[in-house]
Amino acid sequence: MFSSSRLALLRDFFNTRRRASTSSSAARVGRVIFSGIQPTGVPHLGNYLGALSNWVKLQRTAKPEDELLFSIVGWHALTLPQNPDTLAASRRDMLATLLAIGLDPKRSILFHQDHNPAHTEFAWILSCITPIGKLRRMTTWKARVAASRNANDESEVDETLLNAGLFTYPVLQAADILIYKATHVPVGEDQTQHLELCRDLAYTFNRTFAADEPLFPVPSQLNTPSRRILSLRDPTSKMSKSSPDLQSRILLTDTFPEIKSKLRAAVTDSVLGITYDPLMRPGTSNLLTILAACTDEDVHHVARRYEGKGHGHLKTDVAEAVEEMIKGPRTEFERIRQETEFLEEVAKEGGEKARERSEATMREVRERLGLRDASRS
Amino acid sequence: MFSSSRLALLRDFFNTRRRASTSSSAARVGRVIFSGIQPTGVPHLGNYLGALSNWVKLQRTAKPEDELLFSIVGWHALTLPQNPDTLAASRRDMLATLLAIGLDPKRSILFHQDHNPAHTEFAWILSCITPIGKLRRMTTWKARVAASRNANDESEVDETLLNAGLFTYPVLQAADILIYKATHVPVGEDQTQHLELCRDLAYTFNRTFAADEPLFPVPSQLNTPSRRILSLRDPTSKMSKSSPDLQSRILLTDTFPEIKSKLRAAVTDSVLGITYDPLMRPGTSNLLTILAACTDEDVHHVARRYEGKGHGHLKTDVAEAVEEMIKGPRTEFERIRQETEFLEEVAKEGGEKARERSEATMREVRERLGLRDASRS
Repeated sequence: MFSSSRLALLRDFFNTRRRASTSSSAARVGRVIFSGIQPTGVPHLGNYLGALSNWVKLQRTAKPEDELLFSIVGWHALTLPQNPDTLAASRRDMLATLLAIGLDPKRSILFHQDHNPAHTEFAWILSCITPIGKLRRMTTWKARVAASRNANDESEVDETLLNAGLFTYPVLQAADILIYKATHVPVGEDQTQHLELCRDLAYTFNRTFAADEPLFPVPSQLNTPSRRILSLRDPTSKMSKSSPDLQSRILLTDTFPEIKSKLRAAVTDSVLGITYDPLMRPGTSNLLTILAACTDEDVHHVARRYEGKGHGHLKTDVAEAVEEMIKGPRTEFERIRQETEFLEEVAKEGGEKARERSEATMREVRERLGLRDASRS
Repeated sequence: MFSSSRLALLRDFFNTRRRASTSSSAARVGRVIFSGIQPTGVPHLGNYLGALSNWVKLQRTAKPEDELLFSIVGWHALTLPQNPDTLAASRRDMLATLLAIGLDPKRSILFHQDHNPAHTEFAWILSCITPIGKLRRMTTWKARVAASRNANDESEVDETLLNAGLFTYPVLQAADILIYKATHVPVGEDQTQHLELCRDLAYTFNRTFAADEPLFPVPSQLNTPSRRILSLRDPTSKMSKSSPDLQSRILLTDTFPEIKSKLRAAVTDSVLGITYDPLMRPGTSNLLTILAACTDEDVHHVARRYEGKGHGHLKTDVAEAVEEMIKGPRTEFERIRQETEFLEEVAKEGGEKARERSEATMREVRERLGLRDASRS
C-alpha cells in the first residue's frame, strides 16, 4: 500500500497518461463507473437506500461521456451455500429490481457477472500477482475466520474448513472492476479495504507488465451518502436479509399496511421526545435516518422537526415517506418481473455489451503477458 | 479424502450411472484422457521421456471410442514470473513439439488452456467448494513455503509474500480435468496428491449439486512408466530447465555432436563395471534409465548387458540411442516451428474443439448451480 498523497500523484499520472495515450482506451475522457450487487432477490430498505438508490442518482447526474456498468454478481454468491432454485429466482428478481428503480439499460450496462467468463480469466491472472498475506489481512476474511468457530479470538479458530472462494473473492472483485478500466467505484465504507487491494493490483499490474504505458487507471472510491439502515427489531445490527425475524426489515414488495405494521412494531426507546443520537438511541435514530433518506434531507434538520413529538407520530410519518418512495418501484417491479422475455433480452444485451468492453481490455492484457496469438478467437 | 476401496466403489457407481444416464454425456462409452504440460519451450529429455512420449504411446494404443485432450497450460505458467516474449515463444515451441513427436491434431485435441476461459470459470466455482485446509496440505505448496525463505522448517517461514495463484492452482488443475469429464489422467507420481484433490472435488460437486445424477466421473490416474530422468551434472536432482548448467540436460533440438559431448561429460562414479543401483550409483543408473527408455526395454535387462563394460562404452551407446530416438522429432520440430500459419491453425481448431466440449459441461454446471438463463449466449 502507499500513502494517500502518493496515491493521488499516481492517479493523476495514470489519468494523464490515459488521456494522452494513443491506445484504443484513450478515446474515453469521461468516468467509467462500476458497481456490483449480489443476487439477493427482492431488496430491503437497507439495500435500496444504501446502494441502489445511489446508482439511480449516479445515472441521473452522470455526464454524457460517463459510462456506467452495474453488475449482478452471481459468482460471488457462490462463496456461501445457495439453493439453486432460489438463486435462479433471485438473479431474475435483482435484474427486475434494477429496472424497477429506474436504471435504464439504454444508458447503463446492466448485466450478470456470470455471463462474462473474462472476469474469472482476469481474476486468475490477478491472483498470480496477489500476495496471500494481503488476502489474510482482509477484515471480511478475518470476520469469517472468527465466525467459523464462534470464537472470541482469532488464535482459537481453525479456518481450514472455509472455502478458497471466500479467501480469494476480493481478487475477483478487483477483476470485476479493472476489466472495464473503471475509474470510479460507488461502494460503502465496508468495501474500502477491498478497493484498496484493487487499486494496489492495478498499480502492480501496470508496474510489472505495462511500465511504459500503464494499462489500468487506479480507481477511486466514489463516496456515496453513508446510510447504514438498521434492523427494526434489533437496532444494534444492520437490516439484513438473513435475519429470521421478518418484522426486522421492509422489502421493496411490502404493501403500505405491511410497512405501517412493521414500523409500528419497530424497537425504539422510552426516552421522551425525539433526538438524533445513534449511540444512545439507535432505534429512534434509525427511524430518523430512514425518513431523511426518503425525503433527501439532512438528518439533523429532520430531527429538529420532531423534537417535541412522540415516537408514534414519527413512525407514522416514516411509514408514509417510505410508501411514497417505494410505491413507484414496487408497482414497476411487480410488472417487470412477469415480463420474462423482456428480462432475458435486457440480460442478453447487457452481457454482450459487457463482454465487448472486457474483451478489449483482455486483448491488451494477454498481449502484455505473452499469452498472445492470432489464433485465439 | 476417502479410502481406496471406498473410492473404487464410488468410481464404479459413477461409471455405471454415467453409462445408464440419459444426459448428453452418456453417449460416450470410451475413456476421456486429459493431460497438460507447461509452456516451457523446447523440452529436454526428462520432459520427453517422463510425459510426452507417453502421450504419443497413448494416442497409438487408444481405442477408437477414446477421446484424447492434451493442453499447453499457459495460465499455470503465470504462477511464476515470466518474460512475456519468452512465454509467447515457449507456447509456440511447445505446440510445435507436440506435433513433432507425433501427436496428431486430427486424433487428439491439442490446445492452449488460455484459449478456453471456461477453465477459469469452472475453477472459480470449484474454489467455492474447496476447503483451504486441503490446499495448505498440498506438498507442492509446502515446498514453496519452505523454499520461499530457504528455511529448514515450515514454522520458520513467512509465506505471506507468495502469490494466491501458487496456492490455488491445484483447483485450476482440477477444473482443467473435470471440465472435459476426463476419466483418465496420465500424470507422474508427483501429481498424485493434486489428482486426489480433483477426485475429491468431483465427488463433492456430485454430492452437493447432482445427487440424483452425478455429473462428473471420478478420474483415475493413468500410471505411466515412471521415468525420473536426472541431471547429467548432478544426478541427485531431476533434469531441469531451470538449472544454469546447460551441460546438465539434453534438449530435443540438440545435434548428435552436442548429445555425445554432454553424455561424455555426464557425472557417473569410479566403480568398475556397470550395475543398476539408483541409490548408490545415481549417475550410472540414470544413463541406464535413459538407454532403457530409448530402446523400450527393462532397465535391469539393459544393465546385465553392460555388466563387464566400462562407462565410456555405455555413454557411447546412450548417445546413439538418444540420437536414434530424437532425430525424427528434431527434424520435424525444426520444420514445423517455421510454419507459423499452420501452428496458428492447429491452435485455433484445437481451441474450438475444446471450447465446444467444455461448454456442454458448463451448461450442465450452471443449470445445477442455479446460474441459468435462456439469455446467456
